[in-house]
Amino acid sequence: MSRVLTPRAEDFPRWYQDVVSKAKLAESGPVRGSMVIRPAGYAIWERMQADLDSRIKAAGARNAYFPLFIPNSYLQREAEHVQGFSPELAVVTLAGGKELEEPIVIRPTSETVIGEYLAKWVQSYRDLPLLLNQWANVVRWELRPRIFLRTSEFLWQEGHTAHATNADAQAYARRVLHEVYQDFMVNVLAMPVVVGIKTARERFAGATATYTLEAMMGDGKALQMGTTHELGQNFARAFNIDYLSADGKLEFAWTTSWGTSTRMVGGVIMCHGDDRGLRLPPALAPVQATVMVVRDENGVALAATRLTRDLVGAGVRANIDDRTDLAFGRRVVDSELAGVPIRLELGPRELSKGQVTIARRFDASKTSASIDAVPSLVASALADDQQRLFDEAANRQVERTVDVTTIEDAIDASTSGWARMAWSAIGPGGEATLNEHGTSVRCLTRPDGSLPERDDDPHLIAHIARAY
Amino acid sequence: MSRVLTPRAEDFPRWYQDVVSKAKLAESGPVRGSMVIRPAGYAIWERMQADLDSRIKAAGARNAYFPLFIPNSYLQREAEHVQGFSPELAVVTLAGGKELEEPIVIRPTSETVIGEYLAKWVQSYRDLPLLLNQWANVVRWELRPRIFLRTSEFLWQEGHTAHATNADAQAYARRVLHEVYQDFMVNVLAMPVVVGIKTARERFAGATATYTLEAMMGDGKALQMGTTHELGQNFARAFNIDYLSADGKLEFAWTTSWGTSTRMVGGVIMCHGDDRGLRLPPALAPVQATVMVVRDENGVALAATRLTRDLVGAGVRANIDDRTDLAFGRRVVDSELAGVPIRLELGPRELSKGQVTIARRFDASKTSASIDAVPSLVASALADDQQRLFDEAANRQVERTVDVTTIEDAIDASTSGWARMAWSAIGPGGEATLNEHGTSVRCLTRPDGSLPERDDDPHLIAHIARAY
Repeated sequence: MSRVLTPRAEDFPRWYQDVVSKAKLAESGPVRGSMVIRPAGYAIWERMQADLDSRIKAAGARNAYFPLFIPNSYLQREAEHVQGFSPELAVVTLAGGKELEEPIVIRPTSETVIGEYLAKWVQSYRDLPLLLNQWANVVRWELRPRIFLRTSEFLWQEGHTAHATNADAQAYARRVLHEVYQDFMVNVLAMPVVVGIKTARERFAGATATYTLEAMMGDGKALQMGTTHELGQNFARAFNIDYLSADGKLEFAWTTSWGTSTRMVGGVIMCHGDDRGLRLPPALAPVQATVMVVRDENGVALAATRLTRDLVGAGVRANIDDRTDLAFGRRVVDSELAGVPIRLELGPRELSKGQVTIARRFDASKTSASIDAVPSLVASALADDQQRLFDEAANRQVERTVDVTTIEDAIDASTSGWARMAWSAIGPGGEATLNEHGTSVRCLTRPDGSLPERDDDPHLIAHIARAY
Repeated sequence: MSRVLTPRAEDFPRWYQDVVSKAKLAESGPVRGSMVIRPAGYAIWERMQADLDSRIKAAGARNAYFPLFIPNSYLQREAEHVQGFSPELAVVTLAGGKELEEPIVIRPTSETVIGEYLAKWVQSYRDLPLLLNQWANVVRWELRPRIFLRTSEFLWQEGHTAHATNADAQAYARRVLHEVYQDFMVNVLAMPVVVGIKTARERFAGATATYTLEAMMGDGKALQMGTTHELGQNFARAFNIDYLSADGKLEFAWTTSWGTSTRMVGGVIMCHGDDRGLRLPPALAPVQATVMVVRDENGVALAATRLTRDLVGAGVRANIDDRTDLAFGRRVVDSELAGVPIRLELGPRELSKGQVTIARRFDASKTSASIDAVPSLVASALADDQQRLFDEAANRQVERTVDVTTIEDAIDASTSGWARMAWSAIGPGGEATLNEHGTSVRCLTRPDGSLPERDDDPHLIAHIARAY
């Protein structure tokens, strides 16, 4: 068999590009840094959207839509925010055939424009908490773009909430972090994540605290999969989001924001992919099982159609591949590239014995089973492989994480995995040194890995890694 | 009761603005012509999206996502297209802190950028038809913006397909027109539509034929609810979308595009709304029935919770309004403004008799019913009112449409409704006269109202109206 993909061990970034391209997930757009998400890639994003959307609604937030265009003056109102985003902005200066009096910024994120409207909608403590989310595209000009991971335009959801008290805002930012994001990543994406707090250096521009979910990729690097931010009263002051409290005082609200994006598609590829291509976690996969007609003789296509229908009836997202004009081997390679969890091979020989070959993408294992038993076998294989993908990723993270005590050892460890080191022994100075060597403090946790209350806890552990 | 809305008869556009604002559907954005879609408005759009998306998928198209940013040079390639869109473009000239070498256009529609990729993906007749759709925001600078109807940025779906033959492209454009759009508008939005072909003057820039669905609003004006376009080989030639046919010849593909947008939300408001506010068709309504706790005494809230649960169990999208700290009358007004089809009023008096008051938004009728009977009564009331909304709109369209034989009468008729007139008696010259008088040929049909094959049929009827 000719080599379909660059092996991961040879060149991981090249392997990633190969998978994205050969599995027809996405390609570069015509404007530098933009991307075209092809149907196979978009179907993965749609599954992520549907699952996250129901979790977001269960957490009480309602969807809305705010404009793409933000007046330049809005960005200026929160000092840290404008400083953080200015280098990445795309600016419209011409519209309707005329030069604009005030340049318009394409949203890099929507805290400012949403802040303007929260100020109108929040009047009394009765209006709080006000919990909003939007699904949208945002633009951040990228000098080193990489498909799904860092693109000038990407798709995301951004939640924005306003609360009466700091405690309520904190509790909500943490609720989203755990119930919406962590649970989704662990149980749907089969990705273990370290959930921690960002250092001041890595914090979102304008936030008082940023929480993050960091996952280890197949090459030992880290990917930030999502973040939630406590914005304190920074945006409330900048946009005058105030309310009349129950005892008649005018108070500033406390706001939060939180987001996950199409970058998660890149995370799934790099976490679970192998040298044959993508491996999609069954809970995420748009197609969980493909029934493949090996050759259409003696009623194979009809039997395959029936089997597909039975699988769908059993709650499996199944489809049929009856493209017998294409070579079978080529179709197998394509199915593996696409990461379909289970392939059911049905040819005249199998059918004559009332059997089907069950091929599992997780470990390329093949077994024979009687056709009648297939739906229940597939259902349990999908559940098993969801767990096995998670376990494999979790084991890798444990194996490739080392405890260190010096900056030098941390830099060294991060060439092949993650390092853990006492934050008190690093500090902002050590963090700058790590950055100079191409690595970074991804987040801080308690020694047992749990989320600290604040970033000034004296016993924090820093998780150090090179990052995408 | 103080007046909540401007009556329609007094000032229809003002009434529309009042409904949009008081029902908290949307408001103007900070940049001229943009809009903020609030949760109540976005929930309607989400229902439209979900229903259309499943129809689009059933028609074989797959979702993808193409970039917001289009190189200016792409727009130039199709002569009519660039001429049609140039006055409406928003242009990015600065990004990442630098002036760009080539200005970037924010997509007003995506034929050009998708054309570039179709050219890569289409190689052989085996790749055809290639059926794509995307959900996205687009930007067309508007000098006279109106929320939902004409905004500088709007949300839409745009389908783009490539076919081997003209016949196949035509058949697909018509399939989408009828199966996806017309069926959705009639059966979900409860809106009768005239389905016709556009005159050359009203055709999409770059199309060889444009089909449209036109609906009559409450004031007798027309709203274009959606369009499908046959693009012939215009974009295929401009972007070099060619393929090797079964007999080995290199041929240009035939392409189509088709779209519907957030403007449909405005259409629903203006078609069905009355002087109390919005009336949502039950098949569209995010909430079909609200159980209102009049006063929480003697277990009313508990009974209301049970009733809500029973309604949900019976497949009704129901919620509960137990905000007894707000005046009941105020809550009734809000529910009517929001267009919830059915209000179930439950107070201590009703509960003591085991009864509930069923109030129908369609005609403000109220009846009493025993609690046990409510789920089945609600289900049939929803079906009835869906039909009654459609019938009311269809009757209005018949009553306010007149057959005329002169341009003068057509202009006169279009001040209060629609006119029908032989297209052969109008011609391009008459059409220009109509336009000078603020009215237009919305579309052409056969005399029996059916869709003609081509726009050069000698017996076509022109449907003439003022339009939003």
